[in-house]
Amino acid sequence: MSKPYVVGIDIGGTNTVFGIVDARGTVLASSSIKTQKHADINDYISELHEELTKLMVANDAEDKIAGIGIGAPNANYFTGIIADCVNLPWPTPIPLADLVYEKFGIPVAITNDANAAAIGEMTYGVARGMKDFIMITLGTGVGSGIVVNGQLVYGHDGFAGELGHVIVKRNNGRTCGCGRSGCLEAYASATGVARTAREFLDARANEPSALRALDIDSITSKDVYDAAIAGDKLAKDVFDFTGNILGEAFADFITFSSPEAIILFGGLAKSGDLLLKPLKESLDKNTISIFKGKVKILLSELKESDAAVLGASALGWEAKTAADINKK
Amino acid sequence: MSKPYVVGIDIGGTNTVFGIVDARGTVLASSSIKTQKHADINDYISELHEELTKLMVANDAEDKIAGIGIGAPNANYFTGIIADCVNLPWPTPIPLADLVYEKFGIPVAITNDANAAAIGEMTYGVARGMKDFIMITLGTGVGSGIVVNGQLVYGHDGFAGELGHVIVKRNNGRTCGCGRSGCLEAYASATGVARTAREFLDARANEPSALRALDIDSITSKDVYDAAIAGDKLAKDVFDFTGNILGEAFADFITFSSPEAIILFGGLAKSGDLLLKPLKESLDKNTISIFKGKVKILLSELKESDAAVLGASALGWEAKTAADINKK
Repeated sequence: MSKPYVVGIDIGGTNTVFGIVDARGTVLASSSIKTQKHADINDYISELHEELTKLMVANDAEDKIAGIGIGAPNANYFTGIIADCVNLPWPTPIPLADLVYEKFGIPVAITNDANAAAIGEMTYGVARGMKDFIMITLGTGVGSGIVVNGQLVYGHDGFAGELGHVIVKRNNGRTCGCGRSGCLEAYASATGVARTAREFLDARANEPSALRALDIDSITSKDVYDAAIAGDKLAKDVFDFTGNILGEAFADFITFSSPEAIILFGGLAKSGDLLLKPLKESLDKNTISIFKGKVKILLSELKESDAAVLGASALGWEAKTAADINKK
Repeated sequence: MSKPYVVGIDIGGTNTVFGIVDARGTVLASSSIKTQKHADINDYISELHEELTKLMVANDAEDKIAGIGIGAPNANYFTGIIADCVNLPWPTPIPLADLVYEKFGIPVAITNDANAAAIGEMTYGVARGMKDFIMITLGTGVGSGIVVNGQLVYGHDGFAGELGHVIVKRNNGRTCGCGRSGCLEAYASATGVARTAREFLDARANEPSALRALDIDSITSKDVYDAAIAGDKLAKDVFDFTGNILGEAFADFITFSSPEAIILFGGLAKSGDLLLKPLKESLDKNTISIFKGKVKILLSELKESDAAVLGASALGWEAKTAADINKK
């Protein structure tokens, strides 16, 4: 009998969340450990194994796991390795798929977190039945997972889908964590929104804003959101500015793969019409006529608390295939 | 016995070129008619049928044609229809695949010219064996055909791959034939190069240039090329400017599909190092570190005179499949 469950593991900079998932996308049980606790990757894998084993035993799921799917920053589907990554505490490259496989004896597939989200959306979420869509994660950074013709776009090296690093401002653009400047991520991420707020507060020094009551250096996108919802003009302008840039960028993305939808995921995506209204207006204004009005802007349907685990777990079903690719 | 030949038809604004091609990519025979001769599409199809029949009879190829592949502006692989197109003399939409199938009784597949070039390159050219590459055609306009995971990217509506209409200049960009401004095509096409030359001649009025001997309004990219090859500084700067913009745009394209190569095709691609040197320098400077040095810039290997027909003909081998898609 084929095994009825998969394990999904989402390795974030702070927490590692994991769960046991069935074929319908029900999370049977989930738990988490601190990503930063162990300086040695082997100790981390050991704790992960220990905690996951407890979870499996408690849910009578031992020997019923078809595969383990892992979403992690800069994780490469083809090689099973985490390349260069500033958010994790271990020296890179990390042969993650091999390490986990050796510990668990279960087929493992890994990919980056945005790709995992796209797979999750296609398997369990709003992209079910879609063959062409783009998933954009608006979190601390901006990530993307692209699906073309029903398949995730990995590119020739496994690193495709870095749309957070498309240049949206060629001249005098903001510096980006990638070392260049003007990247979409420097504007349309949660940190980008906070930067915009600081810039606006500075440039519009005479304009009153609820944000001025806060310590300017520690303003977060949540602060800007709260102020905008309460009617603060400057805070609302921050979202207009952000939505406009996203719309311009999306109009370019569409010329590439002509997706049925662009799906938003992550903290900022929960800003609702504050972000969506200017985004859609900008998209409509900037889209070339052949694509105008054709592309849906959708929000992820995955339940926030389960989304990361679900996305990674969906990859677990193809873990066998990925393992075969690695053997080639 | 399966049929050994395909027919390739390339419908350009001026000429329609067609030929009979075998499985190795040898063009057995080719000919052409004037695209603009007939105001009625049915008369055009009749002349095409007549001329192609002559060619088949002369080459003992009747009843040996497995499929007809057609490359044409704005031709849609999924629907078999030519959408809105300013370069052809007939009212759109044109149900091209159906019209040709009815006349010839042979399976027909159509796609736009840049996609046909990509398929040709993958089947017979420098992209043989590649699963991920981007074909950029630098002609009167800028077209693109994108291959991901060994498949052409058509998108959900069949119109994917309009990279000539990515915005490379957000503010005060040049007007583009698409009705917007700042598109790559307005800068990096043959006409874009001529526009750049005119702008430079105007802005650098005191600088001598061989181009000043020409009628400024009718300067062509070929004139600029000839002057640059002869050492003209201003003309060389035009190619530096063009290559720089292409490099910037390609650095963005790479973040999408992480291709093994970007392949250049079309008139401007024959400018050699004049264009390639600044293009490669700009690409290297603008590429995010994860992709730096990984992407080859290649020139099409297809023989110029055969390329259009070869590209279209390669699609002929999948004409049956496309016909099935249309039946769905």
